[in-house]
Amino acid sequence: MRAALFSGETTMSDELRTVWWEQGAVCLIDQLRLPHEQLVVRCESVEAVAKAIKTMQVRGAPAIGCTAAYGMALAGLLSSATDTARLLKDLVVAKDVLDSQRPTAVNLAWATERMLVHARQLGAGSPRALADALLEEAHAVLAEDLAMCHAIGDHGAPLIPAGGRVLTHCNAGGLATAGYGTALAPIRSAFAQGRTIHVWVDETRPFLQGARLTAWELHQSGIPLTLITDNMAGYMMKSGKVDCVIVGADRIVANGDTANKIGTYSLGVLARAHGIPFYVAAPTSTIDLSMAHGDLIPIEERSSDEVTHLSGHLIAPVGVNAAHPAFDVTPAELITAIITERGVVTPPFVSGLQRVKGVA
Amino acid sequence: MRAALFSGETTMSDELRTVWWEQGAVCLIDQLRLPHEQLVVRCESVEAVAKAIKTMQVRGAPAIGCTAAYGMALAGLLSSATDTARLLKDLVVAKDVLDSQRPTAVNLAWATERMLVHARQLGAGSPRALADALLEEAHAVLAEDLAMCHAIGDHGAPLIPAGGRVLTHCNAGGLATAGYGTALAPIRSAFAQGRTIHVWVDETRPFLQGARLTAWELHQSGIPLTLITDNMAGYMMKSGKVDCVIVGADRIVANGDTANKIGTYSLGVLARAHGIPFYVAAPTSTIDLSMAHGDLIPIEERSSDEVTHLSGHLIAPVGVNAAHPAFDVTPAELITAIITERGVVTPPFVSGLQRVKGVA
Repeated sequence: MRAALFSGETTMSDELRTVWWEQGAVCLIDQLRLPHEQLVVRCESVEAVAKAIKTMQVRGAPAIGCTAAYGMALAGLLSSATDTARLLKDLVVAKDVLDSQRPTAVNLAWATERMLVHARQLGAGSPRALADALLEEAHAVLAEDLAMCHAIGDHGAPLIPAGGRVLTHCNAGGLATAGYGTALAPIRSAFAQGRTIHVWVDETRPFLQGARLTAWELHQSGIPLTLITDNMAGYMMKSGKVDCVIVGADRIVANGDTANKIGTYSLGVLARAHGIPFYVAAPTSTIDLSMAHGDLIPIEERSSDEVTHLSGHLIAPVGVNAAHPAFDVTPAELITAIITERGVVTPPFVSGLQRVKGVA
Repeated sequence: MRAALFSGETTMSDELRTVWWEQGAVCLIDQLRLPHEQLVVRCESVEAVAKAIKTMQVRGAPAIGCTAAYGMALAGLLSSATDTARLLKDLVVAKDVLDSQRPTAVNLAWATERMLVHARQLGAGSPRALADALLEEAHAVLAEDLAMCHAIGDHGAPLIPAGGRVLTHCNAGGLATAGYGTALAPIRSAFAQGRTIHVWVDETRPFLQGARLTAWELHQSGIPLTLITDNMAGYMMKSGKVDCVIVGADRIVANGDTANKIGTYSLGVLARAHGIPFYVAAPTSTIDLSMAHGDLIPIEERSSDEVTHLSGHLIAPVGVNAAHPAFDVTPAELITAIITERGVVTPPFVSGLQRVKGVA
C-alpha cells in the first residue's frame, strides 16, 4: 500500500513519519522493503501490530515503543468489553502478546506498561471513554518521542562545525524513532536552520542500515549526502572532508563508554587520530548508570550467515565462517560529547551523566 | 570446465595455480566465477587470452603478466610463418592485441615486451624452434613470479608473531600472482612450516575481494580463517585477537608511503593505535622511486554504481550517489616493515628501498 510518509503537505522538507494513527489503524513504514519500495503497513488488529514488530517491519527501540503504545490503544478500541474491569483484562492480554515479540527491546515493555498503568489510573467510566483516553496516551508517547528527538536536535545542531560535513554510521534516524531521529536530529535541525550540511553515510555492513535506511531518509528529506563503504571513513577524514562524527547509542554506561553498532569504535579511533570531534546522540533513557564501565557490556554475537549472505545471496565461499559481533564499545576518552534531550554532556562524563539522569 | 586447480596431487596443502600451460592452451581460473564456481578457462587463441584479460577472468598485475607471456608463446606456436622475420611480425601484432586490453596494467606490457625482446635476441633459426623457445621463456616468467612470491614468504614468515593471528585486506594472494601471493605468502610459508596461523579476512567492500577470493584460496589451502566485515577490524584489535596486519601494495614510493586498496589506511591507523605491527608485502617491481611521497600518487575514483550495486542488485536508494576512491595511501610512519623478495625493509625506508631496488 502506498501512502504519504511525510506529514502535512508532501514536500522534501517535511518530517518523516515512521508510525502513526490513521482511521482506526496503526500505520507503519515497512522498513524491510526500504529503500526499494515505500510501503505502508496498516495494522487493524493487535495481532497485526505484533507481527509488524516481530518481523522487524518496524525497528529501532523508540519506534517500537510508539508502535506498541498504539497497539494497546487499538486493543482498547477493538475490545467488546462492556465494563472497564473486563477491558483491563483485554489490555493485559494485548500487553502479553505485544511484549513477547521482541523480549529484549526495553522500550516495548516500557510503552505497554505505561499504557496499562494509565488505564488502571483512569479506572471507572465507560469502556469507550477509557479506550479513547488510551489513544490520547499513545499520541502522547509519540509526541514525547518526537519532542525528545527535536530537543536532541536543538542541543546538537550548534556542535556541528562550520563546513557541516558530518559522518554517521548505521541508522539512528527518524526511522528508528517516531520520526526525527537521535544521531540524525542535530543534522536535521542544522539543515532546517538553513546551514550548509553534507552527510557521509557509512553503508554499515552487514545489514546495510546506512545504505538502506539512513541514505533513504536523508534523501527523502532533501539533505545532501554521499554514501561510502565503511572502509572509506579513514580516507575521507585524512582528506580533510569530515568536520565531525555523530553516532547513536544502544547503551551509555556510567563513565560514558558507549555501545553502538559494530564499526563505531573504529570511527572513534579514526576521528581521534585526525582531531575530528566525535559525538554520541541519544535520549537519557539510553544511559545505564548501573554499569560502571563498557567492558561490562555484553556484546551480542550474531549469526555468521548474516555476514556471508546478502539479500539471501551467498557472497563468500561455502564452508567459510564469519565473525559477527553486532556491537562494539567506544571508550569515553574517544567521545567529545554526549548529546541528550536534556542538554550536552561533556567530560567528565560521570557527573554529567548523573546530572541529566536527575540523580546528581 | 572443471579441472585441478592445484598442482601435483590435489591435496589441501598443494599450491594454488592461477595460470598455467596445458596441452597447447593457456589455462586460467575464472576469477569472475569464484567463489561459487571453480571453472578453468582454456584459451586456445591469442584473442581468447586477450578476452580473459579484458573481462578480468584473470586479475592482479603479476597474474596478468604471466598470462600475457603465455599469450605471446601461443602466438608463436599458432603462427603460420615460414621464416622468423615473419614470425616476429606476428608477435608484434599479438603484443598490440594483448597490451590494449588493460592499458594501465604495468606488468602486462612488461611481459609482452620481454617476450618480444627475447624473440628478437634469439634471431635466426626455424620459426618452430623460436616458438618453442618463447614457451620456455613464458615458463620462466611464471617460475620467476612464483620464486618471487616464495622469497617474500620466506622473508615474511618470521615476522608473524607467536599466536599467528594475521589480519589481511583485499586479495594479494595466489590469485593475484602465478600462485603463491604477496601478502598471503608469509602466511602460506608460516603455515607450511607447521606454525599456528589464523587469518582474519576483511571482506573488502565494495568488490568483496576478501570474501570472494582471499577466503576462497585460504580455505582451499586448508589455512584457518574467519571472515569479517571491514568495520570489525578495530573491534578485533581492541579485543586482543590480532597479532599483526599484512597487506599488499599497488605502489610503494621513495619514502615508503604505500598505495593499496581502499581501507588499508584505516587499518594502519587502527594497528598503530593498538600497538600491532603493520606489514606491507610486495615485490620490488611495486617500488616507484621516481615519486618522493604518497601525496603525489593519483587516487583512482571509480563509479558510484560499484558501491550502490552488489552482484547487479541495487542496495541503496535510487538517486543516492556513493563515493568510490579505489585506493588510499598509508603513510610510511604507520608501516612497521616492507617485505620484498630481496629482504625485509625497515625504517628509515628511503635508504632501504633504494637498497632493494639496487640503486643505493
